[in-house]
Amino acid sequence: MGQCQTNVLRKTKGIFSNETQAALQTINCQDYAIHIGSIEQSLANFLQGRDYSSVAVVVDENTRRHCLPLILDVLDSKHLTIVEVPAGESFKNIETCTLIWKKLLMAGFDRNSLVVNLGGGVIGDMGGFCASSYMRGIDFLQIPTTLLAQVDASVGGKLGVDLEMVKNIVGVFNNPKAVLVDPKFLKTLNSREVLSGYAEIVKHALIADSVMWNKSILLGLDPHKIDSDQLRRSIQVKRNIVEQDPFEKGLRKILNFGHTVGHAVETVSWNTDNPLFHGEAIFVGMICETYLAYAKNLISKDLCDAVCRALKGIFYRKDSVSRTEEIFQIMLKDKKNRRQEIRAALINGIGSAKYDVILTREEVSESFQYYKKL
Amino acid sequence: MGQCQTNVLRKTKGIFSNETQAALQTINCQDYAIHIGSIEQSLANFLQGRDYSSVAVVVDENTRRHCLPLILDVLDSKHLTIVEVPAGESFKNIETCTLIWKKLLMAGFDRNSLVVNLGGGVIGDMGGFCASSYMRGIDFLQIPTTLLAQVDASVGGKLGVDLEMVKNIVGVFNNPKAVLVDPKFLKTLNSREVLSGYAEIVKHALIADSVMWNKSILLGLDPHKIDSDQLRRSIQVKRNIVEQDPFEKGLRKILNFGHTVGHAVETVSWNTDNPLFHGEAIFVGMICETYLAYAKNLISKDLCDAVCRALKGIFYRKDSVSRTEEIFQIMLKDKKNRRQEIRAALINGIGSAKYDVILTREEVSESFQYYKKL
Repeated sequence: MGQCQTNVLRKTKGIFSNETQAALQTINCQDYAIHIGSIEQSLANFLQGRDYSSVAVVVDENTRRHCLPLILDVLDSKHLTIVEVPAGESFKNIETCTLIWKKLLMAGFDRNSLVVNLGGGVIGDMGGFCASSYMRGIDFLQIPTTLLAQVDASVGGKLGVDLEMVKNIVGVFNNPKAVLVDPKFLKTLNSREVLSGYAEIVKHALIADSVMWNKSILLGLDPHKIDSDQLRRSIQVKRNIVEQDPFEKGLRKILNFGHTVGHAVETVSWNTDNPLFHGEAIFVGMICETYLAYAKNLISKDLCDAVCRALKGIFYRKDSVSRTEEIFQIMLKDKKNRRQEIRAALINGIGSAKYDVILTREEVSESFQYYKKL
Repeated sequence: MGQCQTNVLRKTKGIFSNETQAALQTINCQDYAIHIGSIEQSLANFLQGRDYSSVAVVVDENTRRHCLPLILDVLDSKHLTIVEVPAGESFKNIETCTLIWKKLLMAGFDRNSLVVNLGGGVIGDMGGFCASSYMRGIDFLQIPTTLLAQVDASVGGKLGVDLEMVKNIVGVFNNPKAVLVDPKFLKTLNSREVLSGYAEIVKHALIADSVMWNKSILLGLDPHKIDSDQLRRSIQVKRNIVEQDPFEKGLRKILNFGHTVGHAVETVSWNTDNPLFHGEAIFVGMICETYLAYAKNLISKDLCDAVCRALKGIFYRKDSVSRTEEIFQIMLKDKKNRRQEIRAALINGIGSAKYDVILTREEVSESFQYYKKL
């Protein structure tokens, strides 16, 4: 994963011309801000006037090499600790959290310290949970470096780790002090990583932005050419939903479209030779759940077929739903369930969705058949 | 630990006479209530009209035997899971949390489930943290069964576990749905357990209730004869402080009086043949920190001596401060510190205290000398 070229970095030290300042765009979300633009500028702005006793940057081997150099100059090296964790979802667990907590403890971190999470969703979710539970909560800053993390994990305060193959089962809701999004982190992401983030952009369009679906995605938007305006538009969809329902009591559940099947498909794929990226699994999930929307009479068969053909054109892997029983067993343990009934969020039109739809085992099986024959 | 005689239980099933109802006293704290009185009544009241999909009761071997029988009749056995954890502070760690989380997961607990923590501070802190982080937070109910937990842990939403011998380093602030306090759980606590809880009652008097100090404690109140009015008075001291400062940004720190030295003394004692109970260590800490209040010119030498003689009359163990260096090293890692300076809350009179007082190594050593010579 060769992300975050260092040669695009202009070295700067906390002082910026008005011209550069103007380039930062800000989305306010609940009690924090998402700044889109130059990371050197947004990070220097953030630290200015804040008097942290120490700063930890949580990285994995990839972001240590490719992303950390972009921010090191802005940080005060005297009170800096780099916490490197192994890369990948399989290390997003309570054991890795324990390593992070111990490292903070050994480095003498107190309640006036800051944790900076520099990486994709794994680093953000896990580092955010560790900061939120270290000494019952210290400040943290999210610097998402993948497209997925920038348009998804950047908003909403959902933090956590996996347990017993169940995703995000241990965690909390807590907001960072700020989120800093810089498109230059995306410059050298590989195709699978870009596609993985693109799944959330497509999802945001399907559940809440019909204009984006009809004018951009259906027309074959190249996910490698997503610009900062499209990034901002997608982040705003999520922000609008999260602000109305921060604790996922209702409306926010529509963000789970594609994820009831998708999460389970992803989890099962971890035990194969060819594990899926999160967003790839969500493309699988969105096709199955679009079929389920039809099966539940929420959309017509024609619309179902049209949406699924478009989704298939972006990502398709026939064998991803073949382990039916395993996928179903994991779906039974989904956090969105109640009384062990499987509940999903399904679209009921382009740009509109409904949550808490109860699915039967038979309907889910049918959707896998539909997927395989598509 | 032979607490919670079952023979004092009157078996009842959710329906109570007005006379019994009247016996419940309620203290409101932030967004939840502390009900003092019959556990059968308060628990039945709580569950009435709430539609939990499943209920887990977290117990240790002691509370399983002595306390669980008192509440079993009120609970619906169909959706009930008993989670037994090993007894004692040494098991208040992330490994035991992992056992609890896995048990909830395997039993199919969803977001509409309830965790009931039935036990002392260890069960309450750990079970509360597990519930607060299971699926990013499910409802929990605290039923403290020791005097310490009833007057201390019952208020304030501080949850967590120990790591690397540092107390409560991993945790969150989160409130239970309710706290149910029943004096009958105290009936057969042994003397050390009663004394341990009494430390917090004494502390509440010293920092915020001079009447309680002068009229009850100085006159030799028998901790075994604490009645529900005294319980309520002590809980209210803590409630008043916590409501003014829920996240320990300022005033709430005065509740740490006796705990800067006390926590460290307790931790070091775990490695000896004769570990101290929490409250015993807090009596040691209160003497040392009363001396420190004198050393910092916050109180006169006469007042210092008078308070310390009274405290010594309740609990004293000369060798508890002999491992000076170890105690000091642990104090350096206290959550209340900033920039690795030791900070403590000290009394500046009877019923009044000051926080964020910086202590030097020399002052702390002097206080240990004072303790040993007392």
